[in-house]
Order: sequence, then structure tokens, then C-alpha cells
Amino acid sequence: MSTTAESYLVGLIGDGVMPSLTPGMHEREADAQGLRYLYRPIDLTVLERPGSDVGALLKAGEQLGFNAFNITHPCKQLVLEHLDEISQNARDIGAVNTVVIRDGKFHGYNTDASGFGRGFAEGLPGANQQQVLQLGAGGAGSAVAYALLASGTEQLFLVDPDAQRAGQRAAELNRLFPEATVTAASPDQVPELLPAADGLLNATPIGMHHHPGLPLDLAGLESRHWVADCIYRPVDTELILAARDRGCRVLDGGHMAVGQAVDSFEIFTGIKPDAARMRAHLLEMLEAGL
Amino acid sequence: MSTTAESYLVGLIGDGVMPSLTPGMHEREADAQGLRYLYRPIDLTVLERPGSDVGALLKAGEQLGFNAFNITHPCKQLVLEHLDEISQNARDIGAVNTVVIRDGKFHGYNTDASGFGRGFAEGLPGANQQQVLQLGAGGAGSAVAYALLASGTEQLFLVDPDAQRAGQRAAELNRLFPEATVTAASPDQVPELLPAADGLLNATPIGMHHHPGLPLDLAGLESRHWVADCIYRPVDTELILAARDRGCRVLDGGHMAVGQAVDSFEIFTGIKPDAARMRAHLLEMLEAGL
Repeated sequence: MSTTAESYLVGLIGDGVMPSLTPGMHEREADAQGLRYLYRPIDLTVLERPGSDVGALLKAGEQLGFNAFNITHPCKQLVLEHLDEISQNARDIGAVNTVVIRDGKFHGYNTDASGFGRGFAEGLPGANQQQVLQLGAGGAGSAVAYALLASGTEQLFLVDPDAQRAGQRAAELNRLFPEATVTAASPDQVPELLPAADGLLNATPIGMHHHPGLPLDLAGLESRHWVADCIYRPVDTELILAARDRGCRVLDGGHMAVGQAVDSFEIFTGIKPDAARMRAHLLEMLEAGL
Repeated sequence: MSTTAESYLVGLIGDGVMPSLTPGMHEREADAQGLRYLYRPIDLTVLERPGSDVGALLKAGEQLGFNAFNITHPCKQLVLEHLDEISQNARDIGAVNTVVIRDGKFHGYNTDASGFGRGFAEGLPGANQQQVLQLGAGGAGSAVAYALLASGTEQLFLVDPDAQRAGQRAAELNRLFPEATVTAASPDQVPELLPAADGLLNATPIGMHHHPGLPLDLAGLESRHWVADCIYRPVDTELILAARDRGCRVLDGGHMAVGQAVDSFEIFTGIKPDAARMRAHLLEMLEAGL
């Protein structure tokens, strides 16, 4: 551990972030890299502060020596007005999950999107992704849809029970990616859409420890489909287990969690982390019940 | 470096603290102990905030995950009203330089006094300290005078050009230590007081890099006197060099700096640091021009 070199103080701002494994992923990777690195959860639920306080917390953090932050629900949009610079993809998505302070200025990024793209490329190499069926058009959904379209998906079906939300997201994405086609769909259309899809992506909360279950009827799922999930608690969701059972290639949510941490770490430090080692750490922590 | 164990985030609040070596002493000792430890200077001069903001900074620090703080000029008195518990010596001295957050409560301590006492005992073992001539009755002066009286000094002469300040401090100390005698004196009395003294202690800023010189006329200094300084930049002040030259036992200001850091570190972590190693680190950093 170096003592004269730069050191890193990072915070994670959002509701219910105390159990997040992102701090642990960053700290373990930093240890392996020999960096002095401390990553603190700043849990708005515990502090009883509203998401709209994110700007005040960023300012306070800057004064107390923080270098950077990750930002999560409900602050990813609220933080936008407090930033001096916003990266292209974060502006496009309208959400920031990564903030770095440089020379007194706040710079925002979105590594949910870039991290999913990274995880997808590493975890499902060579997968055909021209036509994708995505479940969930909320916050995580926006980021992963952006990542898919940015990496070559031509036809994306956005399924959400909230038809207005799905329609709005589809319109935004069609504007951003005029060469692709994004179509809003309702859950009851899944059976007719699945046959033409190369793969299926879950960006709904269904499958989480507290929302157990399957996000769709698996009747039409074939071994030629790849199946990806954004959920990493548990890392083996019912969907991932069932898909693996059917012989599908799968991408569990750990890849996205690691991908965003990898990209944030590099933005924070300028040092490329070891993605495989970060995934091993994440799985270790999950295994240990952290 | 442990990753699942407790980690420590500490701040130093005060004017002009950016160049302080206290953060480096803590971090290096923590590294040697295998602790995750980050110590940030929070410089009111840089932030253009008044000392009266110390309470707001403590609260903000608590919310952002800080565990503890050192407090220095001009906040050592100002911080008192923001604390839930104050140790006996800090209450007696009326100044706090160490704050720990435990279960949401702010606990204040004074390790300037305990640290000087520790440094004195370790650096001048067996020194006779019944009668001491102390130069300087300001903030540092209060703490070291308290430490001397608490460890057996019976007759203390407090010399300060500000007769009112010296008189007030003497009165306070006489109240706290009724079995000792503390007498205010003016600088021109030094020649008549030195012969009866066992040792001489400098708690004025004279001898610092930016206040070069000797804090007294050395005419009456003999090899039987011990000479202590509170200044550690440079660690060899003109006073220390001249006293060593005359064959006096000396205690440079590094001992007090290390002593306060040792005691604060133990309060912060519950772990006893290695005082000799911390002094070696301090001297290394000074040598390196940090």
C-alpha cells in the first residue's frame, strides 16, 4: 500500500445502499492494485434524507475530501442538475451513476450502460444480438437497452406492463438510434415475440430475493436463445437457472454489476481493473452471504 | 489489508492543515497494522469557511461515513458545544483535538496534553520536572502545562508577553492543581527564573520555519537543564540545537506530534500503535520535505 501516492475516497449515494457489494468490489480490487481506497455507502434511507439532497451531499463530500461517487436510485436523474459535465451516453440515457470531482468540477458518467455492454461482450462472446426481447423499461432497462442498441441491436422489443413508460422509452431510443427499431410491447405479446428473438434480457425486479419468480412464461424459450438478467441477488435467478436447464447460454446479473464497477473504478483511478478478479470477489462476497 | 473488517475514515479540521504530517503518520501506522485507513485534511483556509463551521462539518462527516476527527486551530474551543461527551482532561483544558463518533454521539478528547505527557515520559525518561519554566501560554501552552502538572510538576512558571493571558492561564491551572503552584511571569523575568528550574519548555511559535529565532536568551542555560520544544517544523529548532550544544538533554517537538497521534490513533481504532515506528515515519516525512 502506497502512502505518498494518491488515495481514493469514494461514496455510494442512494436509498438502501448499506448492503451493496459495490464498495467491497472496489476496495478488494484496490487492495489487489496496491491503492489506498475507501468506499463508503451513504444511505439516504438510514440518513432519512430525500433523493433531492444528492447535490448537497456531493458538495459536502467534495469539502470533506471525497474524490468520486456512485449514484443510485432515486438520485440518478436528480443528480444531473448538479453536474458541470455529463458524458454523451449519460446525457442520452438521462441518468448518471458515476460522478468524479476533478479540479472542483463534477463530471457525470453512466457505467450501468457501458458496464452492461462490457459484461455482455465478455460473458456472451459472439452472441447474436440483432433482435432482442427486453423485459422492463425502468431505470436499469433504459441503460441496458441503450447498451444493446449501441453495440448493434437492430430490433429491440421493450416489454413493460406500463404501456406509457414502454412507449416513451421506445420513442426516446428510436430518436437516439435512428437506424434501429425499438418497439414497445405488452407482456401478453411475449409468446409471439420470442420466436424471432436472438435473446432475452430481464431488466425487471422479478427474480430478486424479495421478488421471487419468473418474469415471463418460458414456453417459447429454446436452447438457441441467450438469456441475460440484470439481477445479481441471487446471481442464479429462477430465470437463469431455467434457461441454463434448457441449454441456453446465460449471462447472470453479476456481469452487469461487475461491468459497472469495472468502468467506474477506471474512471475514478485511471487504472484498469481486473474484471475477472472483480467478478471472483463479487461471487465470494455473495457466497459469504454479504 | 483486511476488506471485511472495520475500516477507518478520519478527518483533520482546521486552518492551514493541508501540509500537516498527522494524516501521513496515521496512514503509515495503519498500513503497518494492516488496517484500511484514510485520513483527509479538511482545510478551512482552502474551503474559505470559518472555524465556527466545525459543528456543521462534523455532522456532514458523520453522514458521509467519517469515524473520527482531529481538530486544530481555530476550532479546539469552538468544537466543545457540538460534543455529546467530553473527557476529563479536555474539559479541564477547555479544548478538544480529537473527536470520535460512536453510536451517533460525538466524543471529545485532548491528546495534545496526553500526547505531550507520553512524549515527555518516553523522550526524557527520569527527568526531574518539579520546577519548570514554560514559554508561551497559548493553546499549545495550556495543553503542555496541564500535562506537566498532571505528571508531577510542583512549580510552573508560565511566561508570556501577554500578561493577562499568562495570568488567566495560571489562575485556571492553580484551580485545577491546588497542590501545585503556577505563576505567571513576563519574558524579562526569565534570567532570574532559569537558575531554579529543572527544565525549560518552549510553547511559543518562535523557532518555526516561518518564525525563526530563539524564544529566550540562553545566557542562563546549563547542561543540567532539560529543554523541550513543541515545534516540529523543523524538528531541530534553534533552541533544540543550542541546548544540545550545551550538553542539555532535549525533547524535540516531534515527540509531542507523535504523542498526540499515538493517543488519537488508539482512541480511533482501539489498537495500540507503535510509537517508535510513528516517530520514524514522521522523521522520514520531514526528511523527504513533506
